[in-house]
Amino acid sequence: MPDDHKYVLTLSCPDRTGIVARITTFLADIGGWITEAAYHSDDDSGRFFTRQEIRAESVPFGSSELRRRFGEVAGELVADSWQVTDSADRKTVVLLVSREGHCLYELLSRWHSGEMAADIGVVIGNHTDLEPVARLFGLPFRHIPVPGDAAGKAAAFAQIRAAVDAHTPDAIVLARYMQVIPAELCQAWEGRLINIHHGFLPSFRGARPYHQAYVRGVKMIGATCHYVSAELDAGPIIDQDVIRVDHADSPADLVRLGRDIEKAVLARGLTYHLDNRVLRDGLRTIVFG
Amino acid sequence: MPDDHKYVLTLSCPDRTGIVARITTFLADIGGWITEAAYHSDDDSGRFFTRQEIRAESVPFGSSELRRRFGEVAGELVADSWQVTDSADRKTVVLLVSREGHCLYELLSRWHSGEMAADIGVVIGNHTDLEPVARLFGLPFRHIPVPGDAAGKAAAFAQIRAAVDAHTPDAIVLARYMQVIPAELCQAWEGRLINIHHGFLPSFRGARPYHQAYVRGVKMIGATCHYVSAELDAGPIIDQDVIRVDHADSPADLVRLGRDIEKAVLARGLTYHLDNRVLRDGLRTIVFG
Amino acid sequence: MPDDHKYVLTLSCPDRTGIVARITTFLADIGGWITEAAYHSDDDSGRFFTRQEIRAESVPFGSSELRRRFGEVAGELVADSWQVTDSADRKTVVLLVSREGHCLYELLSRWHSGEMAADIGVVIGNHTDLEPVARLFGLPFRHIPVPGDAAGKAAAFAQIRAAVDAHTPDAIVLARYMQVIPAELCQAWEGRLINIHHGFLPSFRGARPYHQAYVRGVKMIGATCHYVSAELDAGPIIDQDVIRVDHADSPADLVRLGRDIEKAVLARGLTYHLDNRVLRDGLRTIVFG
Amino acid sequence: MPDDHKYVLTLSCPDRTGIVARITTFLADIGGWITEAAYHSDDDSGRFFTRQEIRAESVPFGSSELRRRFGEVAGELVADSWQVTDSADRKTVVLLVSREGHCLYELLSRWHSGEMAADIGVVIGNHTDLEPVARLFGLPFRHIPVPGDAAGKAAAFAQIRAAVDAHTPDAIVLARYMQVIPAELCQAWEGRLINIHHGFLPSFRGARPYHQAYVRGVKMIGATCHYVSAELDAGPIIDQDVIRVDHADSPADLVRLGRDIEKAVLARGLTYHLDNRVLRDGLRTIVFG
Repeated sequence: MPDDHKYVLTLSCPDRTGIVARITTFLADIGGWITEAAYHSDDDSGRFFTRQEIRAESVPFGSSELRRRFGEVAGELVADSWQVTDSADRKTVVLLVSREGHCLYELLSRWHSGEMAADIGVVIGNHTDLEPVARLFGLPFRHIPVPGDAAGKAAAFAQIRAAVDAHTPDAIVLARYMQVIPAELCQAWEGRLINIHHGFLPSFRGARPYHQAYVRGVKMIGATCHYVSAELDAGPIIDQDVIRVDHADSPADLVRLGRDIEKAVLARGLTYHLDNRVLRDGLRTIVFG
Repeated sequence: MPDDHKYVLTLSCPDRTGIVARITTFLADIGGWITEAAYHSDDDSGRFFTRQEIRAESVPFGSSELRRRFGEVAGELVADSWQVTDSADRKTVVLLVSREGHCLYELLSRWHSGEMAADIGVVIGNHTDLEPVARLFGLPFRHIPVPGDAAGKAAAFAQIRAAVDAHTPDAIVLARYMQVIPAELCQAWEGRLINIHHGFLPSFRGARPYHQAYVRGVKMIGATCHYVSAELDAGPIIDQDVIRVDHADSPADLVRLGRDIEKAVLARGLTYHLDNRVLRDGLRTIVFG
Repeated sequence: MPDDHKYVLTLSCPDRTGIVARITTFLADIGGWITEAAYHSDDDSGRFFTRQEIRAESVPFGSSELRRRFGEVAGELVADSWQVTDSADRKTVVLLVSREGHCLYELLSRWHSGEMAADIGVVIGNHTDLEPVARLFGLPFRHIPVPGDAAGKAAAFAQIRAAVDAHTPDAIVLARYMQVIPAELCQAWEGRLINIHHGFLPSFRGARPYHQAYVRGVKMIGATCHYVSAELDAGPIIDQDVIRVDHADSPADLVRLGRDIEKAVLARGLTYHLDNRVLRDGLRTIVFG
Repeated sequence: MPDDHKYVLTLSCPDRTGIVARITTFLADIGGWITEAAYHSDDDSGRFFTRQEIRAESVPFGSSELRRRFGEVAGELVADSWQVTDSADRKTVVLLVSREGHCLYELLSRWHSGEMAADIGVVIGNHTDLEPVARLFGLPFRHIPVPGDAAGKAAAFAQIRAAVDAHTPDAIVLARYMQVIPAELCQAWEGRLINIHHGFLPSFRGARPYHQAYVRGVKMIGATCHYVSAELDAGPIIDQDVIRVDHADSPADLVRLGRDIEKAVLARGLTYHLDNRVLRDGLRTIVFG
């Protein structure tokens, strides 16, 4: 087994003294060689969060036995959430797109080059503009138009749901998908549905954020990668970034300059998610970057 | 007269072809040695903006004659706003503070070291906490408490207005002044009243922006230097900046980290203003930095 | 002719009063509608630089007549360098690559999506690793291995020269090409040969810059897009950027994090170059961004 | 005892499995309430580093007993370096300055406002320019000129050494002190002697870094806070930062713009040092920020 075969353990539980000791003693006892460890005690919520990355070869058993044993520790610590993932289990991503291609190119390039260690199940578009891009990279493309009327929309999202769920994806990425996702899908895909918003949230929610930014005369624009919740552009933020702009930049310039930030922030946020580096604490995220 | 004696000419007018030719021909005709020139044509508003910095010694007459002649050009161009300032005319600043001192220390340090080429007329506080800081730097401090009731508040702001206007200041700076300025003062001091908001506007307007930022879980926090208008935290932005934060930063950490950004952005914004580098275009600013 | 048909005029000459007046009067006289204008007077070198972007439709003649007339102005101003380019004349780019693909994916994606308004003549690699990427995008790939011995190397670069020059490219881009370009080619392609160095120049010239950065313990790493001169990694810088790193980042992390900066800086630098936004002043560049 | 009474434990030792378990079990056993914990395993050097911050009130004994007990753990772990500091023990800083005051104002403002929780023993200058600034803040100033000749220089530094050592400072800060510190003092003050270099090291070592940066035509300038070692500008880096500049910025502009970065980076680096957040690993630093 290669040197980079890893197990990742994550856990969140009510905070108290001795948790780190309990977890690290557990790992020491099974001989686990920790390659990366991160901890966070949140004063506000009174919760504790950890992520441990260990060499698979250092543990004398497989991931299912590790999961069983770590489950006992999680039980003791009254964990509200915990996970053991095996880097050998390849993840799956599904992409939803509309007409803007820069985020799609970015993710497909990272996938094609092997930088993103995940499979891409399907690219779904409500327009056909980006079908050639998916095809270019040899990926299946599904065109599911989303009509304006409620019934048509419901039917479309039922199709989308089926097309997505067929892949049981670890991440459903809205790569500049310009449709509002119905609340029940936000619910169903909660914690797996990731959006890139082309504005520095919570500023400029909703439509045409660059135009809003231009009108307001801000001196920096940004992008936000976040989990989608039922409330529009209000889900937990994974990552953000900004760039400086000035009075000489037209709305079209902001759109152009923003693209580079959007795709970089989305790629980074998705990587954190796929690496199990993001833990959630209500509206806040713990990102063990 | 020293080498750094300069005239600064600013002008905004409806855009059309030939404006730059007209202005630069005017300057060439009077022998003006341009040390810095900036232009902006705004597609959106259809207005033209310029700032020209010229060596005083290169012009065969003084600032009042220059003003008269440039006024003729401005008239031809149907300028809605124009100005000739003489670097030999020292500017005056008045500061309003509450309890947080970091912005005050920053501005007084720059003033004391000569980096800020302006006089500070008076420091006015609604609390006495920062009186020792003003005194330390040998500056007068006026304590004008602002009561909670409408009548008391009106009386207090009448006093503040008199205390400020006595200095006919070029800039009235709210250096973390924690009181809402009455609309009539915003009006009276329009274009001279500068605030530092401890949030990345338009996000987190109003009270406790760092706490708001914490709760929302943003990954960057910022500060905004802006002209004050009657609507709270909604005036034209002069400058902004951000820093990266993460889940480990408590609200108290955000407050602490934010201080460095606030004072840097305020100092930069004020410098732009005092150097006549900021032209206004409705809610937007042209900053010839 | 479409609204975005533009002429770009650039010029550098010895500085003196009246240059801007001369150029803008020239443009006003021919009815030129300036959509973007930039000027720079360099105190140090005593030279003046300008770039003017005008709507083609506003001028009552074509680019060759404009070139002839502007040449007269340039002559009067004793310009050492001037140019009139027509946005209708499509530019050509040639790419040289080795094994690292992220910059190649970035540029090909921008080309494929139409964001980069230029043709890509050929992709040349000293290895075949990236041939599939060029083919993916439907582009010709030439494999020209570069042997270690002087004679083999000379023969290889003669081939490369012929393959490049066949396209008379406006830009020859070293997109992580891991070979030192011979001095005579640096000379022949001077001002058109663009490299992305994976270090914040002038730090970490030469090989393995991330490893050098790691050993030195810097807290930020960067990338530099620059024109290539005969001296290694010492040509005029077009653009740079950095990201924050910390002690937890291994050399492999630096390589991974650096990729995103490299490709963004290269794409930005190349765009500036193709838009005739970069003027050279010895080792320094004027970038009218 | 107030809520913010803390003990800080730091330790570095050869890496092996079980270290975190050992340390956290030790802390759990004595009831230590960890308020902040950080760990780093360095693959390269094979060393382990940790910093633990605990509430003093949670431990049933004082700092000397804690030190004794933690010393036993350190012994077991074959620690090459470890420390227990008590936030109740106030630290002392000594400042060395020349003529540029911005870093001095910054540090004295933070000290005066209580933001920097340390005493300033003395300000030593090789010129008298900044004596008024020290006096303004009510601090003693020692003028110790440094002659150009070797004997005079040696005598001056003997005086400086005595003046510094009289305070047994936790940090000796070169706040834009424009003299090279003799090797024996670098040695004597190793790990406590902190410099702010006005360049993005390792670029632009030595004199006039902004001028060097201007000549090289870089697009960003920076500042570096580092421990001083005998080799000039080559000691372990604590923190760095940069700002974007462009062709329009003269060397004087770079100096002016750089000031803000210098003072911010120095203040941040010094705070990390005083909070025992910086551990050293040869030329690299571990900064548990």
